[in-house]
Amino acid sequence: MRHCMSPLDFSVDELDQLMGLAADIEENPDKYSHACDGKRLATCFYEPSTRTRLSFESAMLRLGGQTLGFASADSSSASKGESVSDTLRIISGYADICAIRHPKEGAPLVASLHSGIPVINAGDGGHAHPTQTLADLYTIKSLKGRLDHFTIGLCGDLKFGRTVHSLISALVRYEGVHFVLISPEELKLPSYIREDVLEKNGATYEETESLEDAMPKLDVLYMTRVQRERFFNEDDYVRLKDRYILDNDKMKLGREDMIVMHPLPRVNEISVEVDDDPRAQYFTQAKKAVFIRMALILTLLGIQVDKNIPQPTNNPSSEKGGEKC
Amino acid sequence: MRHCMSPLDFSVDELDQLMGLAADIEENPDKYSHACDGKRLATCFYEPSTRTRLSFESAMLRLGGQTLGFASADSSSASKGESVSDTLRIISGYADICAIRHPKEGAPLVASLHSGIPVINAGDGGHAHPTQTLADLYTIKSLKGRLDHFTIGLCGDLKFGRTVHSLISALVRYEGVHFVLISPEELKLPSYIREDVLEKNGATYEETESLEDAMPKLDVLYMTRVQRERFFNEDDYVRLKDRYILDNDKMKLGREDMIVMHPLPRVNEISVEVDDDPRAQYFTQAKKAVFIRMALILTLLGIQVDKNIPQPTNNPSSEKGGEKC
Amino acid sequence: MRHCMSPLDFSVDELDQLMGLAADIEENPDKYSHACDGKRLATCFYEPSTRTRLSFESAMLRLGGQTLGFASADSSSASKGESVSDTLRIISGYADICAIRHPKEGAPLVASLHSGIPVINAGDGGHAHPTQTLADLYTIKSLKGRLDHFTIGLCGDLKFGRTVHSLISALVRYEGVHFVLISPEELKLPSYIREDVLEKNGATYEETESLEDAMPKLDVLYMTRVQRERFFNEDDYVRLKDRYILDNDKMKLGREDMIVMHPLPRVNEISVEVDDDPRAQYFTQAKKAVFIRMALILTLLGIQVDKNIPQPTNNPSSEKGGEKC
Repeated sequence: MRHCMSPLDFSVDELDQLMGLAADIEENPDKYSHACDGKRLATCFYEPSTRTRLSFESAMLRLGGQTLGFASADSSSASKGESVSDTLRIISGYADICAIRHPKEGAPLVASLHSGIPVINAGDGGHAHPTQTLADLYTIKSLKGRLDHFTIGLCGDLKFGRTVHSLISALVRYEGVHFVLISPEELKLPSYIREDVLEKNGATYEETESLEDAMPKLDVLYMTRVQRERFFNEDDYVRLKDRYILDNDKMKLGREDMIVMHPLPRVNEISVEVDDDPRAQYFTQAKKAVFIRMALILTLLGIQVDKNIPQPTNNPSSEKGGEKC
Repeated sequence: MRHCMSPLDFSVDELDQLMGLAADIEENPDKYSHACDGKRLATCFYEPSTRTRLSFESAMLRLGGQTLGFASADSSSASKGESVSDTLRIISGYADICAIRHPKEGAPLVASLHSGIPVINAGDGGHAHPTQTLADLYTIKSLKGRLDHFTIGLCGDLKFGRTVHSLISALVRYEGVHFVLISPEELKLPSYIREDVLEKNGATYEETESLEDAMPKLDVLYMTRVQRERFFNEDDYVRLKDRYILDNDKMKLGREDMIVMHPLPRVNEISVEVDDDPRAQYFTQAKKAVFIRMALILTLLGIQVDKNIPQPTNNPSSEKGGEKC
Repeated sequence: MRHCMSPLDFSVDELDQLMGLAADIEENPDKYSHACDGKRLATCFYEPSTRTRLSFESAMLRLGGQTLGFASADSSSASKGESVSDTLRIISGYADICAIRHPKEGAPLVASLHSGIPVINAGDGGHAHPTQTLADLYTIKSLKGRLDHFTIGLCGDLKFGRTVHSLISALVRYEGVHFVLISPEELKLPSYIREDVLEKNGATYEETESLEDAMPKLDVLYMTRVQRERFFNEDDYVRLKDRYILDNDKMKLGREDMIVMHPLPRVNEISVEVDDDPRAQYFTQAKKAVFIRMALILTLLGIQVDKNIPQPTNNPSSEKGGEKC
């Protein structure tokens, strides 16, 4: 049995297969509409996250499966002192696969240790959110046609942004990806990611404080939120925040075939006027996230609908299986 | 694509068709039990309302569809500062149709502007709750056989009662409906409804403080809650509240073929002893609400099960489509 | 129409049938996977209980049915002052069967009085939790092969423990069940259960403060939580709690064919090291609870899938129907 704890659980070849499967599902949804008949997905959300939870539920329902679960820790047995491990062991008797979100790093991994069913990490604190990264990769592959030889700008809070760190770790495995790191000095990418991930893997990158300067170079612009509470003082926040708001003026500096992504929710870091620009693809990204989650559910359940569409094995001990994070 | 924001979205002819469809569903539920196979309804409730939410979910499940959603704003992304418009745009990627309840007037309309799927207003503050009104109309039509030429008594809080205002606006479009407005002076129907809705449409009405006096005249008695907090002082509340409690004594003054309705929840404005009276139809009303919601879902999704049962078009720009509120 | 308010609602013969049906479901799940197609279960939880709620939902989904409901009173109409009776009457229009949990004793019974659909008591305060007891009985029957002539140790809080009282009441109806009551003096089984249930029914029992002494005698060890707040002072709690923690050392004193049960959630009264002991069956117990709930749902809905598998009638007035609690 295989779990999904980190996007690096899958080898590059496996990721290719997973995205190929997602693409086939997106093109031929009817072929998969009964793939999970009689199967149940449990969504165990110890921390609310409507988008992620509903995306998983939509994925399972589109596969013909059913869902059950809880949307916050209040309504779970956690309040009675039960361990996550016990809860998951019990849930194993109720469902066939489980997506778990937890504020504590490592909780999904602990949960998976005694689980009788595949466990998907749907976000554990600042640690990982692998299906967000899978969705990001699938969106780029799907819209740009490739995951290698392109320039991606990562803009905003690169210091604390979990999705950005995770996306970088996933992209350095592909050839020729050039990173433009756009952030205020205070929110620069931590050195352990620069050195241990980017440099160690021989990836090229540049750092800048100016979104305007970066724009013309980018094939992909990945925006993130700049949270007020990350700044040491209000003055710095007020001074800097506007520089990282994407609006139509800044969009004019970008290439015609650039795409703009955002993990969402967006607060005001992308002006709503940008929504109508055909390069704005963040809502498409949210839509595509459902298809990669469908592919993941099928893979972890070991359900192959079409023998002509290769997919990763759900046996982690096989030679094709990637290592756990 | 067509949304449902107000009961006046539908012309009188369209309402007839919608109620005809609801009646056919009520009589032949099996015919419709797979009409929405593979479709998903999102229930986005920014404010809790068990009855309305479960009624929508029951409606979708009876059509063979599935549901997903959230039951309160706490467990939604609203807490992260996301706009309703963004949320709905993302939900468009998860579901095929959406019912939204929001404490803020106009929020469902804003949500519908960028939505990729039909949006149903399931209540927005004191503004509108169109499916309640549709359910009220369908109940009267279904139990009395007509929506014209009858006398309806509206009793209780006519000043703030959203359902009452909405029902009046819907009923003035039919001929020969006579309104008996029963309320304490403090909670009388506002003049803008009396003048702009009743009088402007040539409807006849009378006002009274006495439920007893009104009883013998009524074909339909529509009760509403008299909330303590609506009164300026406790004395007035205590003095008045009992006069508007429906009990068996007052029921004796009513006609044999009268029906009693109530949007529910009922607190104490209808004594439980009345429940056994065959004229008490408020629970039937709640039951019938499911069928009109089923008809609405089918209509907005543009699904026609039986070509012999006419239904409104889901194309708002067609000549049959009604105007938005 | 029949409800389930207490495990004693069912006669011993009926319980046999119910457990026989559960066993058949467990062995041949596919035979039952469409038994409730088009049926809906409402889970009305006025008090959160993830495990019980998800167990019911899993049960209904496995039968091909659907679920809807609420997970806490906040998101229900209770906050608007609606009575449980009214809520259930309305839910009767939305679903085909209902499981209700409520902090107030007797609330499910009140709810059932005007309900148009079968109501299952899913726990009402300290009063009853019949499906837990049904699950306990089914687990013993399933793992030990019988419900008579065996020795059961009940350990922990025997004074306040609802599940223990309920299990005793159910087991005294079988022959030759010997009870070993293991608890600190402060948490002994109340005299009204000792006298009115055990002694009145001629059951044999012994009381002890020592879990070690009891171990070698037991066919079944039923552990419960010892809650700190039950003790009069902290000293007593600290002195006593360790004596009732089950660990591998104490397990060595038990028979090889003994089974360990626990209603869960477990906090620390069973050491996690015991989980790997093949005699630890509390997670199996949680799994088996789903099958007995499936059998109960089928029975109350009057759905018989296999004519060769006898099941209790859903007509409480028939000669086979048991009395209500």
